[in-house]
Amino acid sequence: MKGLWYTEHQEAGVAISLKAKTKLHEERTDFQFLEVLDTDTFGRMLVLDGAIQTTMKDEFVYHEMISLVALNTHPHPENVLVVGGGDGGAIREIAKHPHVKKATLVEIDPAVIDASKKYFPEISCGLNDPKVEVKVEDGIKHIAESKGKYDVILVDSTDPAGPAVGLFEHGFYQGIFDALKEDGIFVAQTESPFLTENLIRGVFQDFKSIFPIAKLYLAYIPTYPSGMWSFTIGSKKYDPEAVDTAKIPDTNTRYYTPQIHKAAFALPLFVQDLLK
Amino acid sequence: MKGLWYTEHQEAGVAISLKAKTKLHEERTDFQFLEVLDTDTFGRMLVLDGAIQTTMKDEFVYHEMISLVALNTHPHPENVLVVGGGDGGAIREIAKHPHVKKATLVEIDPAVIDASKKYFPEISCGLNDPKVEVKVEDGIKHIAESKGKYDVILVDSTDPAGPAVGLFEHGFYQGIFDALKEDGIFVAQTESPFLTENLIRGVFQDFKSIFPIAKLYLAYIPTYPSGMWSFTIGSKKYDPEAVDTAKIPDTNTRYYTPQIHKAAFALPLFVQDLLK
Repeated sequence: MKGLWYTEHQEAGVAISLKAKTKLHEERTDFQFLEVLDTDTFGRMLVLDGAIQTTMKDEFVYHEMISLVALNTHPHPENVLVVGGGDGGAIREIAKHPHVKKATLVEIDPAVIDASKKYFPEISCGLNDPKVEVKVEDGIKHIAESKGKYDVILVDSTDPAGPAVGLFEHGFYQGIFDALKEDGIFVAQTESPFLTENLIRGVFQDFKSIFPIAKLYLAYIPTYPSGMWSFTIGSKKYDPEAVDTAKIPDTNTRYYTPQIHKAAFALPLFVQDLLK
Repeated sequence: MKGLWYTEHQEAGVAISLKAKTKLHEERTDFQFLEVLDTDTFGRMLVLDGAIQTTMKDEFVYHEMISLVALNTHPHPENVLVVGGGDGGAIREIAKHPHVKKATLVEIDPAVIDASKKYFPEISCGLNDPKVEVKVEDGIKHIAESKGKYDVILVDSTDPAGPAVGLFEHGFYQGIFDALKEDGIFVAQTESPFLTENLIRGVFQDFKSIFPIAKLYLAYIPTYPSGMWSFTIGSKKYDPEAVDTAKIPDTNTRYYTPQIHKAAFALPLFVQDLLK
């Protein structure tokens, strides 16, 4: 492998490397080590604590899939919260959605927001939308102070280490249940079924113990470990698989379609086994 | 990254690395450089010319998905051919199928078969099935000599370089059409929509120009570049999406299900765009 390669730090015995032209930025923020690189194949890339967060080439997959499954399951997702997601990609998809009236981003690390505004304008553009409010504060505190307020809550976190550990805990999920309205929907990114089996098992049982409807869905994300990424959805009333696909609005996507909305819930048998 | 890591050679600016305990075998065969390693997370791994072919942890995905979509689309897949696939994984899935009477493997490199029998008995076990005939010969020659013979043909090739170049050409696909019966089905592995866009575009147009029905489907394969892998299917009569899922036999799979059979054809918009 000639030239400059960035290799992701990985505990699980598998690592992704991307060939890079240059490192554009690095800083130790109050919460994590933040890097921005310009890669050959995936364009600009944001890395936090050695884990790839997003790249220009594949960011649309994660940002559409964490947002649109819940937004298009809920019949009137007017008030939406994102915990984490300081890059603004999920907020961009939410702000585009015709039913959304207010979107709130609660990000603990302002350096992520600043880096995204400077280096990823195509991702962070939604942060400037008039429907969007950006709060720099602890998501756990925000959830604890919110009761029956939101239609949809997304937890767009880093891996369960460092500042994100508390975002994978039962008590936090119970707080999210309470912060949702009586027909609210919750989605969290929940890592890879090939590499973090125990995490997915535990999170899914937590969701099941709290929400009347708990399901897992999948998306292809090439710059996340294994490329198979899971999202867990907890819903008080609406079944994400029962959505009337004819009513899904076209929000100019590149990955998500009404057919993908349903197909993402068709789980390989070994993934079904994790949820038993 | 401490310890021994095996990094796949990759032209496309992205590489996968797996932590390994030891290298069990390496040899320069008449056709390619063959390595067997014992990795920490994915178990034993077969590598050809620096490209990961299969690992114990994820081999079931590729082998089920290259085989079962065609086998369960065809109402009576009695006579099946695999070109390449010397590890025996596809043949294992084919030999398990209740409708199959005869399965032929045509592999150009006997060293792949030998290495699989020695180091991957769980994958190569199908090679010993009484329904299976193994021929060490050039798949291109075998196809040219076969007319109207097979119900299903699978091309389980390496990447389009070295010995596999001729397996991605229009003339070879026309030969496969002629080697199939009047209602035959052809499936080839066709690389990643994130990394080999031009290859997929070209192959799909070739399939479309030869077969009445041409479609692409996807599977999650963590040890292949990007983790999103495509298969292209050409069919003379039967539409793989029109299959009656109630009639699909249970062949003790770990990835494939009747729901996955249909969901694998739900393509992200950026993949649909490659096929236009």
